[in-house]
Amino acid sequence: MERIHTTEVGAHLGERVHLAGWLHSLRRMGGITFLVLRDGWGTVQAVVEDEATLAPLTAAGAGVESVIAVTGMATAAPQAPGGVELTAPHIELITAVTEAPPVALNKREIKASITTILDHAVVADRHPTRRAILRLGAGVMAGFRAALTARRFTEIATPKIVASATESGANVFMLDYFGRPAYLAQSPQFYKQMLVGVFERVFEVGPVFRAEPHDTTRHINEYVSLDAEFGFIENHFTVMALLRDVLADIFAHLAAGYPAELELLRVALPTVPAEIPHLHFSEAQEWIFQRHGLDVRGEPDLSPQDERWLGEWAREEFGSDFLYVSGYPMSKRPFYTHPDPERPEYSNSFDLLFRGMELVTGGQRLHRYADYLAALERAGLPVAPFVTYLEAFRYGMPPEGGFAIGLERVLTQLTGLPNVKLATTFPRDLHRLEP
Amino acid sequence: MERIHTTEVGAHLGERVHLAGWLHSLRRMGGITFLVLRDGWGTVQAVVEDEATLAPLTAAGAGVESVIAVTGMATAAPQAPGGVELTAPHIELITAVTEAPPVALNKREIKASITTILDHAVVADRHPTRRAILRLGAGVMAGFRAALTARRFTEIATPKIVASATESGANVFMLDYFGRPAYLAQSPQFYKQMLVGVFERVFEVGPVFRAEPHDTTRHINEYVSLDAEFGFIENHFTVMALLRDVLADIFAHLAAGYPAELELLRVALPTVPAEIPHLHFSEAQEWIFQRHGLDVRGEPDLSPQDERWLGEWAREEFGSDFLYVSGYPMSKRPFYTHPDPERPEYSNSFDLLFRGMELVTGGQRLHRYADYLAALERAGLPVAPFVTYLEAFRYGMPPEGGFAIGLERVLTQLTGLPNVKLATTFPRDLHRLEP
Repeated sequence: MERIHTTEVGAHLGERVHLAGWLHSLRRMGGITFLVLRDGWGTVQAVVEDEATLAPLTAAGAGVESVIAVTGMATAAPQAPGGVELTAPHIELITAVTEAPPVALNKREIKASITTILDHAVVADRHPTRRAILRLGAGVMAGFRAALTARRFTEIATPKIVASATESGANVFMLDYFGRPAYLAQSPQFYKQMLVGVFERVFEVGPVFRAEPHDTTRHINEYVSLDAEFGFIENHFTVMALLRDVLADIFAHLAAGYPAELELLRVALPTVPAEIPHLHFSEAQEWIFQRHGLDVRGEPDLSPQDERWLGEWAREEFGSDFLYVSGYPMSKRPFYTHPDPERPEYSNSFDLLFRGMELVTGGQRLHRYADYLAALERAGLPVAPFVTYLEAFRYGMPPEGGFAIGLERVLTQLTGLPNVKLATTFPRDLHRLEP
Repeated sequence: MERIHTTEVGAHLGERVHLAGWLHSLRRMGGITFLVLRDGWGTVQAVVEDEATLAPLTAAGAGVESVIAVTGMATAAPQAPGGVELTAPHIELITAVTEAPPVALNKREIKASITTILDHAVVADRHPTRRAILRLGAGVMAGFRAALTARRFTEIATPKIVASATESGANVFMLDYFGRPAYLAQSPQFYKQMLVGVFERVFEVGPVFRAEPHDTTRHINEYVSLDAEFGFIENHFTVMALLRDVLADIFAHLAAGYPAELELLRVALPTVPAEIPHLHFSEAQEWIFQRHGLDVRGEPDLSPQDERWLGEWAREEFGSDFLYVSGYPMSKRPFYTHPDPERPEYSNSFDLLFRGMELVTGGQRLHRYADYLAALERAGLPVAPFVTYLEAFRYGMPPEGGFAIGLERVLTQLTGLPNVKLATTFPRDLHRLEP
């Protein structure tokens, strides 16, 4: 008999159906046993009325997480989870598990420390809530790609092994490349800019590596970056307008494709305003001083506390989960950042705050070759390591810009996780390289 | 005026349109000048009848690859490339380029050595044929994802920094991870198997790293792997059937979405037979002996020459660009390979040859915990580095398998490239880390 999935049982009421998956739980209630089968997409309950039906399991000592097949009658059952159950089941054992798993998977909430969850991610991620979070991550990637592809962006796959730690000398992982030093790419920044000269509009979804020696709830050392870059922009406001539309598309993609995950996690998707509220960096600092009495004016960046305050304000004042802060000081932005032509100490760059956390950084970049030479000189950087990068500008580049979204930060903020490490299957941090 | 793309001019005949892009070429023919504008998607010709129109370019000494905007009348012109041209154009200079580019971009074919092309990829990839090849690569990735998503596979993003060089001790890049040794992942093999326990069906498109010290036309040291893995299979034939359908979907995706690229490159897409012809490894060796007189029987693997011969045979005998060879000897396959239950010296694995080159490797894996412990012992491998990997099997795994497609190899074979290095923007090889 053709196998169906747990999510399809409701469409086969009154038929005998065949399913396979993991033995999620087994509850004996007097003479009746409720067996819950979990497959890759959900769970379904089977009602076992005689002990003989369970013989294939009991004979092998097979407990939860054993892999089994169940054939039974799909029956409407308003009292059952999901409103359907399997009656008169026949059970077949595929792979026996005789040890209790290191993390209990069949309680509503996963009850384990973050360390246990991460150490045993291979098992813990089978829990429906863990799986739902990770599947939303897949949805964010797919929604991002669909949004960019619909706007004629071309997907690129840029090298992760690079010759020099160019973007910023610090915080890069060094490796041995056939006896030579090489580095892991901190971002596809240079490559995506170079490829604007080829495709005009590019995007990439790929790993980036940051050797930041911080062990916080906000840092992981390898994460997935959703990058976009495009030419023929007016300035950073063109980039902010695109990002607004991309975010709206991502959330629409989640709403359409992941209702079960959103419901299980009780996630209310944010509404992206037609126009995201916007503050200039200097206005943001002034507002913090006026409102909270903390004089951060003159600081070159916003602190996490500043961002939380601004996030609260955006919610109260505009009912918005999102806030743009633009015009960060040039002094804290990388050399390729385009200055504000009117106030050259500020930049044509922005951060997007989502519920008070920085989620996206972006902006307009320099595009004239002479401007790059001048910027490198101002930054005290040598030209030699940048020669191939600069070639893209030397041989013609339009005004261009872009942004990078941190996938795990989106998931963290969206699902209210206490730690960004829980937003991925196998995080890498200062101490963790396994599993 | 709203900008349109070169590919949209034909839909605006009789209207004044505004375009922007790169000055692809400028040909003076007596009193008339033909200016070709290239944007991210194609080219269009503008006919300039008076020198004054070109003044913005000539005044700045702006030559080819300068970034310009052109406003003109969209006019049907059967003799023009694409059947349309811009008449009475107005030209605006956006970014002037005054030096000749290192690679000529406006000839039909790119005339440069492979070294020059790769050294100056930033410019060379602007050539329409280079760009078409790379864009087909984006199409293969998108087609792969669409094929797997339609079959309810979940996208995963597994770590590229790993704790031990487990899959095979050789050929891994070592890096410094906060003072500890770590390695770059040779493949997502272990992680994708582990996640079959979570999602049942998974896929990943991501970089893999191979420290093979070979400088050949078939090797690069970082490439894009299209990986799939899934549970509840019968054996490797279930995997081969899925792969057949995925390939058919990928080529259908290219046919539908990339007609201009395919035409420019004169690529005839292969037809994937409803059933791909299939030989057992031992039959393949026997056939080579009978047909070519070379006795490779008993060799543990096929050589590139063997593969070419088999590819020719599949074409002559079945009119197929594809051939499955299954049942490779266990001795040459990794420890997680599932043996053929009937003939345990052979494996439930396969290679797919495409036009005589190995394109995909796959098969059924072990799925029982006890089998893994026995396989590691047989291979003389310690259990310790595999403990978290083995957890996936210890706590219940169905029969499972999968495959990995090398993106650059697909492109190489599909477009007839002389070297796999030309199938990517920025290849990494024994000697090349730049650009």
